[in-house]
Amino acid sequence: MELVFKMDKTMINAMTRLQESCKKNGPLCVGLDMSPAYLPPEVIKKFDTVQDAVLAYNEAIIEAVKGNASCFKVQVAYYEAMGLKGMEVYAKTLKAVRKTGLPVISDIKRGDIADTATAYAKAHFSGDFETDIVTVNPYMGFDTLLPFVEYTKTAGKGIFVLLRTSNPGMVDIEQQELVSGERVLDRVGNHLATLSKEFFSFQETLVDSQKSACSPIGAVVGCTEESDAQMLREKYPQLFFLIPGYGAQGGKARIAATLLKNAGGTVNSSRGIIASWKKDESLQDKRDAGVLTLSDIAESAGKAALASKKDLLLACDELLK
Amino acid sequence: MELVFKMDKTMINAMTRLQESCKKNGPLCVGLDMSPAYLPPEVIKKFDTVQDAVLAYNEAIIEAVKGNASCFKVQVAYYEAMGLKGMEVYAKTLKAVRKTGLPVISDIKRGDIADTATAYAKAHFSGDFETDIVTVNPYMGFDTLLPFVEYTKTAGKGIFVLLRTSNPGMVDIEQQELVSGERVLDRVGNHLATLSKEFFSFQETLVDSQKSACSPIGAVVGCTEESDAQMLREKYPQLFFLIPGYGAQGGKARIAATLLKNAGGTVNSSRGIIASWKKDESLQDKRDAGVLTLSDIAESAGKAALASKKDLLLACDELLK
Repeated sequence: MELVFKMDKTMINAMTRLQESCKKNGPLCVGLDMSPAYLPPEVIKKFDTVQDAVLAYNEAIIEAVKGNASCFKVQVAYYEAMGLKGMEVYAKTLKAVRKTGLPVISDIKRGDIADTATAYAKAHFSGDFETDIVTVNPYMGFDTLLPFVEYTKTAGKGIFVLLRTSNPGMVDIEQQELVSGERVLDRVGNHLATLSKEFFSFQETLVDSQKSACSPIGAVVGCTEESDAQMLREKYPQLFFLIPGYGAQGGKARIAATLLKNAGGTVNSSRGIIASWKKDESLQDKRDAGVLTLSDIAESAGKAALASKKDLLLACDELLK
Repeated sequence: MELVFKMDKTMINAMTRLQESCKKNGPLCVGLDMSPAYLPPEVIKKFDTVQDAVLAYNEAIIEAVKGNASCFKVQVAYYEAMGLKGMEVYAKTLKAVRKTGLPVISDIKRGDIADTATAYAKAHFSGDFETDIVTVNPYMGFDTLLPFVEYTKTAGKGIFVLLRTSNPGMVDIEQQELVSGERVLDRVGNHLATLSKEFFSFQETLVDSQKSACSPIGAVVGCTEESDAQMLREKYPQLFFLIPGYGAQGGKARIAATLLKNAGGTVNSSRGIIASWKKDESLQDKRDAGVLTLSDIAESAGKAALASKKDLLLACDELLK
């Protein structure tokens, strides 16, 4: 399948853009994992459809938090769950984020073989659903990553491969010990380090203005366990991390800060930002009266983003002491 | 999240319907993994858009092969790769298959945690993308399967979990040996056997007319290696298999026949059917002249489906000798 986008001389790889954005704007990634359940009914009913409400909500949140976010993550599952109109909202949300100039991560966790993997890479790195960086599931084998890796070289795209997720079930496969002495996740991590090295070798053929400081091959590492965080951060200093598990999922800023060392990373918070209105004390009266507006909840999200950013930066400072 | 569909007393579980369909119509599953590359340009140019051409092609193929197929498998990646209009074709293709009365498998290989997994299950078991059975990726852990399993109990749906795939890369994780003495894929298989037992226990609470003969928890097992096929078929006699790798991928009918024993399975062929016109000798003149029509290629697919069905049934007969 032919690649639709080609690198031009001014194109900076998306992962390098993200790394730079984290340095400038702080490490927070705002997750637009938008279930209609995160919207108050009085806001939904002002729109013709739930999908229209979700799009307006996303646009308001993007505007309210963009000053305190390094990037946005859009979880496609929630949009698929809203059917064809949901997929339209998904495409429009990606465009709305890209208009801010901040990188956008599509949390798609796709993984498949051969031509099918090529189709997924084309689907999310070009056309209606074009994004900057995708998450990828490596379970079916390392051959399944290649079509995505191709776009890191030819179109400035990036990938985050699942390495150590933040859910309890990650013990079932990821953490299993192999006879070789490593765990399943170590095999994945080592392969990502190899792909990363290969990328830097490939770059040697490019002119300086095309070279990326950061490897476009990143990894998903949850901030739910300190010892794993330390081990993975030390073992893969060159990999940029997408860090889920912070905030509503119970991960700690201190563990996130550990993962932010070396190449760094971006720390996702979804519900903690987009549904912050549910626990915002200043909104209690309006919430009880059922008169919340879109600007109330966007404003609350803006405050939550600033607070999360400060919390993460403080944890980074304390780690340096 | 609330389930949209509830079991009624006459609902037969989709996996049981599929098992019955295999007994009646033979074990062939026709994969509508439809890349525009599988269509001749002279057919594409008769339509306003590539997406319109793909939909017309799918409808023609469904009509031509339905007498020799147990079910259809639709690979969502190819439709995502065609953007929003592609997703419309996807929804319409699912509806076209469901109208035939044959079960439809959505090859989505989704896998994610908690609320996100629930969103994926809702996305593909209800609404615009409603299907009968989905494929699921277990990598992030067994908790990620539960929202899909829920629909097997409440809405008559089925799942095929990736167990032993047909690509070379399956050695990277699936085949890795654990210190416990089993391979990663054995852990998955054993868990599926447990889920299957749990389903039959759950069924004890239902009236007889609601009970399924076949477990709705199935597994994907490729027909590319004989010893694995024998081992997995013997170890999990009660699991129904989705069997990729036959035909264009090089898997052999004999290995597929091994996997069709006990609870049985359905053997997927995609390119071998939908792109059979490319190698059909009777079409050589028309192909060379660039004058192929949709009915030429649908007819070729119909012949290929019949030939594949016969090939598989013959291999089953020979295995019994």
